[in-house]
Amino acid sequence: MGRRLDRRVPRRAAVTAGRVRLTYRLGDGREREVSAPPGVTVFDAASWNGIAVDSTCGGHGTCRKCGVRVSDPAPPTLADARAYDPDRLAAGWRLSCRAVARHDLAIEVPPLLTRPKAATVGVGRQVILRPAVQKRALVLDEPTLADQRPDLERVLDAIDDLEPRAGLGLLRTLGRTLREADWQVTAVVVDDLLIAVEPGDTTGRRFGLAFDLGTTTVVATLLDLSAGVPLAAASRLNAQQPYGADVITRISATMLDHEALPRLRDLAHSTLSELAREVCAEGGVDAGEVYEIAVAGNATMIHLALGLDPEPLGVAPFTLAAARLPETRAADFGVPAHPSAPAMVFPALGAYVGGDIVAGLLAAGMDRDRRVRLFIDVGTNCEIVLGSAAGLAATAAPAGPAFEGAAIRCGMRAAEGAIETVRLGGGPGVAADPVVDEVVLGVIGDVEPRGLCGSGLVDAVAELVRTGLLDASGRLVTPGRAAEIAPKMAERFTEVGGERVFVLHGDIYLSQRDVRELQFAKAAIATGWSLLLEEMGTQGPAVEQVLLAGSFGSYLSPANAIRIGLVPRLPVPRVVSAGNVAGEGAKLALLNLRERAGADALLREVRYVELSDRPDFNDRFIANLAFP
Amino acid sequence: MGRRLDRRVPRRAAVTAGRVRLTYRLGDGREREVSAPPGVTVFDAASWNGIAVDSTCGGHGTCRKCGVRVSDPAPPTLADARAYDPDRLAAGWRLSCRAVARHDLAIEVPPLLTRPKAATVGVGRQVILRPAVQKRALVLDEPTLADQRPDLERVLDAIDDLEPRAGLGLLRTLGRTLREADWQVTAVVVDDLLIAVEPGDTTGRRFGLAFDLGTTTVVATLLDLSAGVPLAAASRLNAQQPYGADVITRISATMLDHEALPRLRDLAHSTLSELAREVCAEGGVDAGEVYEIAVAGNATMIHLALGLDPEPLGVAPFTLAAARLPETRAADFGVPAHPSAPAMVFPALGAYVGGDIVAGLLAAGMDRDRRVRLFIDVGTNCEIVLGSAAGLAATAAPAGPAFEGAAIRCGMRAAEGAIETVRLGGGPGVAADPVVDEVVLGVIGDVEPRGLCGSGLVDAVAELVRTGLLDASGRLVTPGRAAEIAPKMAERFTEVGGERVFVLHGDIYLSQRDVRELQFAKAAIATGWSLLLEEMGTQGPAVEQVLLAGSFGSYLSPANAIRIGLVPRLPVPRVVSAGNVAGEGAKLALLNLRERAGADALLREVRYVELSDRPDFNDRFIANLAFP
Repeated sequence: MGRRLDRRVPRRAAVTAGRVRLTYRLGDGREREVSAPPGVTVFDAASWNGIAVDSTCGGHGTCRKCGVRVSDPAPPTLADARAYDPDRLAAGWRLSCRAVARHDLAIEVPPLLTRPKAATVGVGRQVILRPAVQKRALVLDEPTLADQRPDLERVLDAIDDLEPRAGLGLLRTLGRTLREADWQVTAVVVDDLLIAVEPGDTTGRRFGLAFDLGTTTVVATLLDLSAGVPLAAASRLNAQQPYGADVITRISATMLDHEALPRLRDLAHSTLSELAREVCAEGGVDAGEVYEIAVAGNATMIHLALGLDPEPLGVAPFTLAAARLPETRAADFGVPAHPSAPAMVFPALGAYVGGDIVAGLLAAGMDRDRRVRLFIDVGTNCEIVLGSAAGLAATAAPAGPAFEGAAIRCGMRAAEGAIETVRLGGGPGVAADPVVDEVVLGVIGDVEPRGLCGSGLVDAVAELVRTGLLDASGRLVTPGRAAEIAPKMAERFTEVGGERVFVLHGDIYLSQRDVRELQFAKAAIATGWSLLLEEMGTQGPAVEQVLLAGSFGSYLSPANAIRIGLVPRLPVPRVVSAGNVAGEGAKLALLNLRERAGADALLREVRYVELSDRPDFNDRFIANLAFP
Repeated sequence: MGRRLDRRVPRRAAVTAGRVRLTYRLGDGREREVSAPPGVTVFDAASWNGIAVDSTCGGHGTCRKCGVRVSDPAPPTLADARAYDPDRLAAGWRLSCRAVARHDLAIEVPPLLTRPKAATVGVGRQVILRPAVQKRALVLDEPTLADQRPDLERVLDAIDDLEPRAGLGLLRTLGRTLREADWQVTAVVVDDLLIAVEPGDTTGRRFGLAFDLGTTTVVATLLDLSAGVPLAAASRLNAQQPYGADVITRISATMLDHEALPRLRDLAHSTLSELAREVCAEGGVDAGEVYEIAVAGNATMIHLALGLDPEPLGVAPFTLAAARLPETRAADFGVPAHPSAPAMVFPALGAYVGGDIVAGLLAAGMDRDRRVRLFIDVGTNCEIVLGSAAGLAATAAPAGPAFEGAAIRCGMRAAEGAIETVRLGGGPGVAADPVVDEVVLGVIGDVEPRGLCGSGLVDAVAELVRTGLLDASGRLVTPGRAAEIAPKMAERFTEVGGERVFVLHGDIYLSQRDVRELQFAKAAIATGWSLLLEEMGTQGPAVEQVLLAGSFGSYLSPANAIRIGLVPRLPVPRVVSAGNVAGEGAKLALLNLRERAGADALLREVRYVELSDRPDFNDRFIANLAFP
């Protein structure tokens, strides 16, 4: 009966050597403290932490609205000098989008002139609505002999807060559009590019497409960028499947057959374009109103979709063509959108920790959280990221095919008829019913089961471990032993083709081989995060939250993931499903232009740890095979 | 017998309100003073005036070799801070490519580390050889598990003085090239764009194509950018001729027929590509070794070649789609070159003073000369520019078709068989032979004459004026009067179709109508420059030099141009043929990257005067019809 601990400790941002502490004093008197890597602008650090600062140009230094007053400011830039008179400069006023933070700063943010919209995205992140796609309705003065400005310059002059560049394609239609529209037009600017000039006032119509380009499943979301909300979403299987279920197999296909790469690219394009058409139709949006797309995918998926040779990704030492791609357009991905619509592609950290992971980390706010968190993307590949605002490390674990249907005897992908949850009624520790007496199955679609998918596999194994019907080494007990422990289960223990199996339903069973596959997978993953924990100098209990992401991870039961040792032993509420964070990251990038800089900052901050050259990998792997 | 005037006045650069005076102290002790518009970098002002400053990145701020010591410097930029320690910064050291001149400065240029090559181009201009096209031979470290840098980043890291961006096209072949070439490659950078990575060491092979895209004639020059010399040149008729001999007719064609624009574009492409093939074959150069092209052409030619609708150019108030075009590639002009080769296109001043004139002004150094000069491009259109380093004004004169073959009775273009010079032996003022007794003709190709071209027309009229056989009002004398003045010429004075003519040779004659056509043309031109002289506040005698440029201007006899009043009355040596200055300007742009900034500076400095809305145009025109 001691005193209640005073838990009201000030919420100080964690600062490591190298990071800077920025203290924002807001217009309403509140103070917010933020930790950011040095070299980041005051505007970006605010943006990434949900602190609103006025802006219409999204950080390009041209609207001059993002001014703040900075303690100990750097010498003014040219843009500052154009925005402020010498007295204000001397008093510390700077454009926050130009003010680079290199040491701790106090920043006074003036009261907002416009109330920004916000959207909730990702894992509880509220992001200020500031898309790269902007529109400006213009009523232009017609040319006269006294004002012979060229068409393009006339349009650019009329957009006074932005200074975009233009492409040749725009010029081909500009003159006609201006004259037919009687000089009343809408300029469409994406980031710093003027991509279109449309007749009339079309400012209400701004749309973007976010893609999660997965190895197995591709998800598209149509976003209304004015409102900051999704209008429609759809998913399809990646049409590249015939060339292999995983990245290695598809890469091999391109090495064996020179025609395979263009075909794989075309298959990716067909999947992306069909999804685009589907969501646009559902949302009542014309392709020409989609002004930007964002694509989150692993390195192989991105390379194949762009027709880049993926072979170096599959062969040691596993290198990318580029981590950050040059400018790409929606057309390069085969996506029907405005002809000049750019494509924002999440940069990859390495050949095996790709843009999809970076997108997921962004959505989860991994680098902006004090808490040490473990992010595991359990899918066709398994990427693991550990850390916090103090630093991040990432690796990729060779999990093998356990989570795909093919390697499991009665396995199938997560579609209608797949057993996705398994519970054994009763058992040790269940006071009311210590004897295991039934098998309760959850089937996708609530139909007659056809097979077992990844989450069902984990459930089945976890339950068998819990009830002692699977020993710690991973062996199914003998039928005789089963009869002793759980008589009602005994008849399910049998053999098929000389192999011990546990019958789930009818001719759907879990085999001994299946259990081994899962052990390999979870051992690889566990070895991955335990090595990262050592790299980061933390012990298991310091992990405050585990995020399960990916096509399988999102559906795994946290309790069972803990039980089989897939994740560190933590209280169950601390293991959460992150949902489709890659897709959320893609949406984030469309809703707020500064999030891309956030992705780039992540890239610089995450340290990649290559597992395959660790001498102790094998020993740890073997040690991690057993169930805890 | 007075004292000889001391002519050794210091050669001070003319400075007007707004221009800044930069005094360079060179490594060898000499001092050079330069006048430049404010806002220009110290590096560019040096470059444009033949003052060599070390550089390998051509002004992008990445090589850090262009340092100078500046009196009264501005606060250091980020690039300065990376290049110099605080002591040096405090002492005034700055990167000259980042140092923007806003007021008079003294600049100390350290001794050169590398002796730059120079090329002589244009009208006596020596330009430092510093093409935009650069190559770097690289021997890269192969990737290993310890060094998994992506291919693109590996290449960029190895180019330590440049920080180019790359295009997606490069990535498609990069991986294969690197591996097949065993990591020994040559990076090709054009300005700030990495356009290619080639196997092995290809640094000796750098070529560019300079095009003068004329309405009538197109000229191509193949340049060896390593040596700074032309390898081959060729010219052809612009294949767009069937659609009209002048810009107005071709513009009308596009307005009457929607298919005309793409066809005109294709015709331009075919002319350009045939010329490219011709000069590359002659120079032994592969198309893929041409990494950049430069195109000088009037606004209509540029619009048509790029497939941009030219209609606004032909209709009041005569506006361009854009003065400065967005990035274009050689492929946009149909020119066979490296697939990613950019095209540098000279910006236009207005619809009727185009990139060809800007290129010509650059080559003539009009804005860098103390002397007041008059530049007249006499061609299918007539552009007139007057001024000096103190300021420039430009206009376009509606000269009519006098200089084309079609409007002249026996007219033809300047091809084999055309009478290009005409001299009347003897005449008033020729002491040895005061009586005109013969007609001496110069014919292109020295063959039997077939017709009369522009220069021949001017000669014929000028000689007839000189000998009194054409009166000041432009009327051919009667046969009777001719018999009195020049009996041996009398029989040449006759009539054809009721019109007075002067027979030159056989059935080739000069008609009264022809003389009128020429009068209209020269009256328009004379009105143009006399109005400019008023605009600029100078009188005729202040013009120190007249440059005759253009397809006709280059071939006009200066003495005869003076005689008919086409140019101001000046001593004959002060009227010079400028040659093909548009083509020279295009070559300049390829040989020195900073010349493009020079073209942009010109654009900002030249004031365009629209003649057609001048109320006194008609009166002056009429007054200028007579021969002086």
